Amino acid sequence: LASKLPQVGTTIFTVMSSLAAELGAVNLGQGFPDFPMSDELVSLVSKAMREGHNQYAHMSGVAALREVLAAKIADLYGAIVSPDTQITITPGGTYAIYTALTTVLQPGDEVIVFEPAYDSYIPNIVINGAVPVRIDLHFPDYRIDWDRVRQKITPRTRMIMLNSPHNPTGAILRPEDMQQLRSIVEGTKIFIHSDEVYEHLIFDGIPHQSILRYPDLLERAFVSFSFGKVYHCTGWKLGYSVSSPTLMQEFRKVHQFNCFSCHTPSQVGLAEFLRDKTSYLSLGAFLQQKRDYFEKLMAGTKFTPLPSYGSYFQLYKYDRISDEPDKDFAIRITKEYGVASIPVSAFYQSGKDHRVVRFCFAKKQETLEKAAERLQKIK
Amino acid sequence: LASKLPQVGTTIFTVMSSLAAELGAVNLGQGFPDFPMSDELVSLVSKAMREGHNQYAHMSGVAALREVLAAKIADLYGAIVSPDTQITITPGGTYAIYTALTTVLQPGDEVIVFEPAYDSYIPNIVINGAVPVRIDLHFPDYRIDWDRVRQKITPRTRMIMLNSPHNPTGAILRPEDMQQLRSIVEGTKIFIHSDEVYEHLIFDGIPHQSILRYPDLLERAFVSFSFGKVYHCTGWKLGYSVSSPTLMQEFRKVHQFNCFSCHTPSQVGLAEFLRDKTSYLSLGAFLQQKRDYFEKLMAGTKFTPLPSYGSYFQLYKYDRISDEPDKDFAIRITKEYGVASIPVSAFYQSGKDHRVVRFCFAKKQETLEKAAERLQKIK
Ligand SMILES: CSCCC(=O)C(=O)O
Ligand SMILES: CSCCC(=O)C(=O)O
Repeated sequence: LASKLPQVGTTIFTVMSSLAAELGAVNLGQGFPDFPMSDELVSLVSKAMREGHNQYAHMSGVAALREVLAAKIADLYGAIVSPDTQITITPGGTYAIYTALTTVLQPGDEVIVFEPAYDSYIPNIVINGAVPVRIDLHFPDYRIDWDRVRQKITPRTRMIMLNSPHNPTGAILRPEDMQQLRSIVEGTKIFIHSDEVYEHLIFDGIPHQSILRYPDLLERAFVSFSFGKVYHCTGWKLGYSVSSPTLMQEFRKVHQFNCFSCHTPSQVGLAEFLRDKTSYLSLGAFLQQKRDYFEKLMAGTKFTPLPSYGSYFQLYKYDRISDEPDKDFAIRITKEYGVASIPVSAFYQSGKDHRVVRFCFAKKQETLEKAAERLQKIK
Repeated sequence: LASKLPQVGTTIFTVMSSLAAELGAVNLGQGFPDFPMSDELVSLVSKAMREGHNQYAHMSGVAALREVLAAKIADLYGAIVSPDTQITITPGGTYAIYTALTTVLQPGDEVIVFEPAYDSYIPNIVINGAVPVRIDLHFPDYRIDWDRVRQKITPRTRMIMLNSPHNPTGAILRPEDMQQLRSIVEGTKIFIHSDEVYEHLIFDGIPHQSILRYPDLLERAFVSFSFGKVYHCTGWKLGYSVSSPTLMQEFRKVHQFNCFSCHTPSQVGLAEFLRDKTSYLSLGAFLQQKRDYFEKLMAGTKFTPLPSYGSYFQLYKYDRISDEPDKDFAIRITKEYGVASIPVSAFYQSGKDHRVVRFCFAKKQETLEKAAERLQKIK
């Protein structure tokens, strides 16, 4: 068998989570919370199962859930999107990204990807026969150099991949980024993919620059969201995609022959849960308090924080500890000190290594304390 | 946007289910049960959620579930498959098929597909740039003409698609089919995809010819299964794929960047549920009794049954009622008599129309009675 993804091994998240499990290390690697999700949401899904919502949902998702999402989008971003033609529920954000890219990309198309990048983007491009055109984000602030983007545009450029709040760096897009983006794509046939799975998890009162705020950009965009990330149930694998009616029609053609539809009782439960706005309006503040608490604890270590404006993550430099490659370092501290992280070079195709690791702070207070206590021992 | 699936509209299942819902018709179209699933399984999944099994499962699935499946496979088919390297849990059977085909197929590869065929196969082939080579099953017994298969093999033949029990016809593979298959693929580089989502739902005591019974065939096969179909929770969208360790490694590369992992609490609940063998050993008899009851009721109508040996489905000829094309007929009887079915021509790329429709008999007794009562009115 000729591999469809010859360059690909097991994802770094699986590698580090397996190592952490094997060694009983504190796992600040893979991005998932260790605190309990909402009891109320669990009860609503149990109720949906008991009431018999256990057969196929509509291919595009349970109508009540799409409707409550459209209402939320109107509220938060002032955008009018049709629940019937512009929203599709997916089995997770990663799947929404895969399906969007598979909908758009043809062999030979070029796709601009900023690195560090979530590790599924490039395999998703490659599996469709398209070509990733990689641009490094500016270190250490991880902003986009738009002039560099202009230089990389060719007649084959088919898509630009955005991600805000950004994994792994916690960087966010600003209004000026959106203006730059617009000036580049206007009048072209370039599509946009915007990964917004950490929507709501944005700190310090800064507004989230969703593509949904920009109707002219949404015309050419797929926006991928995750229920798992924001409602602390990553294992439920539920998310959604928003796009223009024309693009969404093509997305659904692929979706109906990939997974077809999604977990019905979770959708029924979420539709009920999301009627209450407090279910999402307080999420940013809750995670910000985790970020701040972890940063305070980490002040007692030799790690140096880079700023995190959103997401589950904060990057830390370890140059005061060692000059090891970040993968070696991450594995060594998991083994020797019992704390798993993610080496940021894993998010670069080139393996570029700024000697930084990513910690996930979406954890219980005692988990963060235990991790910091162990990390303080590193001389 | 150039469509990746230009030939494709909305699936016939969505079309007929939407029409049935709109008109309040009895829906014997799309394949899902209307009787309740196991209360015990619902309780086990609720318990898993309450106990906090809500974060990412391992990419290949919850270990306990893979282990119980390996034990079941050993029991039923005498096959030793490794839960670590040969089984991957997927968000449904349709996704398992999509991911297997995407793992194997390269542009220009030819794939032998028997028609009538489940409607995702050909789009799954086309989206990978491969070429479907269609062979009609013999009418009216829907057996495979293996000489015809031999004629269609070329140096580009990459895969043969099997499905037993068969959707839409209820036909099943026999030991002699497996010998024919072996004689064709032996010594070649041809892979097999075997869709066994209706495993267990096989009648009259005939043993299921799973590829898992044939270790030499499994070396070159992906076998797709569905929890939703057999445990009456199609809306949970959970299934699994079984293959050789080498092929499964490549499958997982695609899977980890498509959906990544599956609904954790359902997996935890199913692992517990499947420890009890009675959870699956009685399923065939249960559905057989539905088939027999429906066939008895249908004797009072002008429809003529074709035999169903397994699955949720039975085909009925309507030539004593009308000579309309089957799509027109199916839509008309939904509108005029309030019973939805699926026109079998929808399972042929050529639109071949033997004037038969498919009824799903996985329904409550009263639903079957209500449907038959209405169908009796057709003169
Ligand atoms: C889908 S596993 C990866 C989880 C995640 O988003 C991360 O850790 O970056
Ligand atoms: C995935 S929707 C189709 C359900 C089904 O298998 C069928 O009705 O044939």
